[in-house]
Amino acid sequence: MNEEIKKGRLFWITGLSDAGKTTIGGMLFDYIKSKKNDVVWLDGDCLREVYQNRDYSEEGRKQISYSNMRLGKLLTDQGIDVIMSVIGMRDEYREWNRSNIERYLEIYLKVPLEELVKRDSKGLYAKALRGEALNVYGINLAFEEPKSPDLIILNDGRKPPREVLDEIIQKLDL
Amino acid sequence: MNEEIKKGRLFWITGLSDAGKTTIGGMLFDYIKSKKNDVVWLDGDCLREVYQNRDYSEEGRKQISYSNMRLGKLLTDQGIDVIMSVIGMRDEYREWNRSNIERYLEIYLKVPLEELVKRDSKGLYAKALRGEALNVYGINLAFEEPKSPDLIILNDGRKPPREVLDEIIQKLDL
Repeated sequence: MNEEIKKGRLFWITGLSDAGKTTIGGMLFDYIKSKKNDVVWLDGDCLREVYQNRDYSEEGRKQISYSNMRLGKLLTDQGIDVIMSVIGMRDEYREWNRSNIERYLEIYLKVPLEELVKRDSKGLYAKALRGEALNVYGINLAFEEPKSPDLIILNDGRKPPREVLDEIIQKLDL
Repeated sequence: MNEEIKKGRLFWITGLSDAGKTTIGGMLFDYIKSKKNDVVWLDGDCLREVYQNRDYSEEGRKQISYSNMRLGKLLTDQGIDVIMSVIGMRDEYREWNRSNIERYLEIYLKVPLEELVKRDSKGLYAKALRGEALNVYGINLAFEEPKSPDLIILNDGRKPPREVLDEIIQKLDL
């Protein structure tokens, strides 16, 4: 394989469940795809389908996260831009990305927990609050907020997704 | 996500261990990459690294194969050409690809078993013949030859890789 390929970018869209990662990830994909062909969108839930992995334990989540990141590296090393929309709420993942992926861009969709519990599209937060679901970040699984993302967006619902996308495009100069 | 994206092609380079899949896969990648950006090369061994999966049992191989194929679908659905160099010696895999991936191209690198046992770059065949390695296709694991590949290449060493690549380019009109 030719070693002189210009590396692709990894857009790591991170946030808790219901923070808007899939919506924004898909919109960012469409935007970049309209300008160039070599971009892919890997959503956390789709990747779980690829692996057929239903393990939501901390260890299971860790294993999947590293598979996702290694896949991100494999693709960006071949010059492909990768948009990855995943929870990924661990410092060690972000550090791995930063050390291993040359053109790494971290976008944190920050949403207050009260708002997430209100959205609760999968009923996960309610379940966790009733003690029926284990390992829900923010309720019964501690999370580590990104400490030095390239971009923090308060995605509490006051801004429509289109404006969030515009902010990403503008701030990251895309 | 925009549903009107033109699907990418899946180049499924299949053959037994040491058939030349990685060499030809890498060369095909470089060739296509020199013409367009939206192409990736996913080699079976690299994908195993991504998943960190060392399970070589039939069940383990099956699981990995389906993950690979689903990943191939995810990427080709987004318009990316995927070159996948994998053993994949099961009819059911090829049927899955054919049913699920619109632009599926199967390239079978056929090499007589005697020649593979001579090459044996990983020492796998010798081990299997001594009864020390399990699950080596062609020795102690039955394989199903591709029945209707788009291209069969007798890769028994009489043709240099460059000529094999030229044959692929010409026959598949790349």
